[in-house]
Amino acid sequence: MAQYSIGVDLGGTNLRAAAISAGGEILEKTSGSTNLSEGRDVVIGDIVASIEALKRRRPQDALAGVGIGVPGFIEIEKGLIVGSNNLPEFEGFPVRDDIERRLGTRVILENDANAAALGEKWIGAGREVNDLVLLTLGTGIGGGIILGGRVVHGYVGMAGEIGHMTVDPNGNPCGCGNFGCLEKHASATAVEAMAQMLHLGEGVTSKDVCDLAIAGNEKARMIFEAMGRALGVALGNLVNIFNFPLYLLSGGMLPAWEFFAPAMIAECSRRSFTYRNAATRIDKAVLGNEAGLFGAAYLPFQAQGSK
Amino acid sequence: MAQYSIGVDLGGTNLRAAAISAGGEILEKTSGSTNLSEGRDVVIGDIVASIEALKRRRPQDALAGVGIGVPGFIEIEKGLIVGSNNLPEFEGFPVRDDIERRLGTRVILENDANAAALGEKWIGAGREVNDLVLLTLGTGIGGGIILGGRVVHGYVGMAGEIGHMTVDPNGNPCGCGNFGCLEKHASATAVEAMAQMLHLGEGVTSKDVCDLAIAGNEKARMIFEAMGRALGVALGNLVNIFNFPLYLLSGGMLPAWEFFAPAMIAECSRRSFTYRNAATRIDKAVLGNEAGLFGAAYLPFQAQGSK
Repeated sequence: MAQYSIGVDLGGTNLRAAAISAGGEILEKTSGSTNLSEGRDVVIGDIVASIEALKRRRPQDALAGVGIGVPGFIEIEKGLIVGSNNLPEFEGFPVRDDIERRLGTRVILENDANAAALGEKWIGAGREVNDLVLLTLGTGIGGGIILGGRVVHGYVGMAGEIGHMTVDPNGNPCGCGNFGCLEKHASATAVEAMAQMLHLGEGVTSKDVCDLAIAGNEKARMIFEAMGRALGVALGNLVNIFNFPLYLLSGGMLPAWEFFAPAMIAECSRRSFTYRNAATRIDKAVLGNEAGLFGAAYLPFQAQGSK
Repeated sequence: MAQYSIGVDLGGTNLRAAAISAGGEILEKTSGSTNLSEGRDVVIGDIVASIEALKRRRPQDALAGVGIGVPGFIEIEKGLIVGSNNLPEFEGFPVRDDIERRLGTRVILENDANAAALGEKWIGAGREVNDLVLLTLGTGIGGGIILGGRVVHGYVGMAGEIGHMTVDPNGNPCGCGNFGCLEKHASATAVEAMAQMLHLGEGVTSKDVCDLAIAGNEKARMIFEAMGRALGVALGNLVNIFNFPLYLLSGGMLPAWEFFAPAMIAECSRRSFTYRNAATRIDKAVLGNEAGLFGAAYLPFQAQGSK
């Protein structure tokens, strides 16, 4: 009887789930919409249905449990989602216990960036190490910290908010109340704002800016240089704080790697003697959108091992 | 037969050692000079002699082991000191194994700021928590990170270099190659440099600046405000990264607390939504110079517990 686990990625728009083997192989995958407008009960019903569909197809196998990655902070002990802009109806609701009761299976919640970091550690670019930091470069910037193979959660599940690290005390204003947050200088949103400042055109997307950089546009290249510098300041701080062997970047901005990475590495190297003196790798994550699914599916396996 | 442990604090100028009970009580303490000018063998001989003297006086008790805090990076597995400006002769020398052989007792090396953080966790201001960060505000700024009750070492023992966090990308130059390191804006050395900029007098020490602030001197108070802001940027980053319940400050600058703390807290609060939303305490450490001795002595007890 083969053992497997089910990982769920509850995004603001997509609800994905996969049955994954203990060896890290995707056995089957489902994908649908997150019907937020229809309310919390419908969304939870959809989650449960997608898990049950996967479970029904493997009657001969043993389900180790279910892991669910969500875009919000998780109070691990209580199994609650807190402070999620995408899922306001879930605030303070006992999601984990509710889903566990409906399924009759162990359920573990995890923040989506943390799940992605754990996925990369398990089966991706971090499989050779036990300690790593993952930055997800998208509309905002998320972070996940893995120490000794496990997610660092902090006191109330809010650890890893690396997107709000101050990289310039007088930098761009952020909705969080700070000035100079990393994500206001290095996310897709920041790239688009800089494109507007440089008059690259109405409604230019971060992908357009990347295409312009590929075509040799100097302004587009300056934007990615600015982005790389901001990332370099943040990575230098992380390297000085953690002295981990690996720092990974993922998300929608990765295609611009060749344009931001040189400035990023130069800045990090200049700002961190630890980077210059201890073997430190800064690299692309490899699992793409699947990282969170893998990480979520790994949670029940990890919980078994620690029993 | 009562169990005790011996903690050693090998400083650049002072060599201190103490026999400490499993309950955290100092049973006996010795203090001498670190005779660096006489070479490595003499220093190691002094360490061994101070430990043996403490051991001889407790023939009826059981020694759990010896912990030694040193001002440098420690390669834990190998028991080596690396990158210590204060102890160049110890670079790459198998200090731990040498002392273990001479004593016939288990020896554990630890970085001095890490040892101080562990001491505060064991028996000081952090005894109620399992996760904390300690910043030591002295000539430079050191850092120690405790997660789950244990020191975070990083890949080659270089974790916790919080004094070299960038708090202003265009700030003061640092010997490490960076600009705007925390310790160039918030250490005793930084306070003295600012005092010079403001013409507070030839050879003014950080203690003098503190006395001037107490007397109501406006320039002295501005200096501590600048120091507090830099600390607030760094603490905001740490709170966002770790979401720990406790951040402690110790060292020679603590007497100026009332002058730098208000700006520090205000800046941290403004820059970290985690600080504003999760219970987070920023406070003074309580063990002073003894923190490192306690932390060093705790290491053998902790190693026993994890067996």
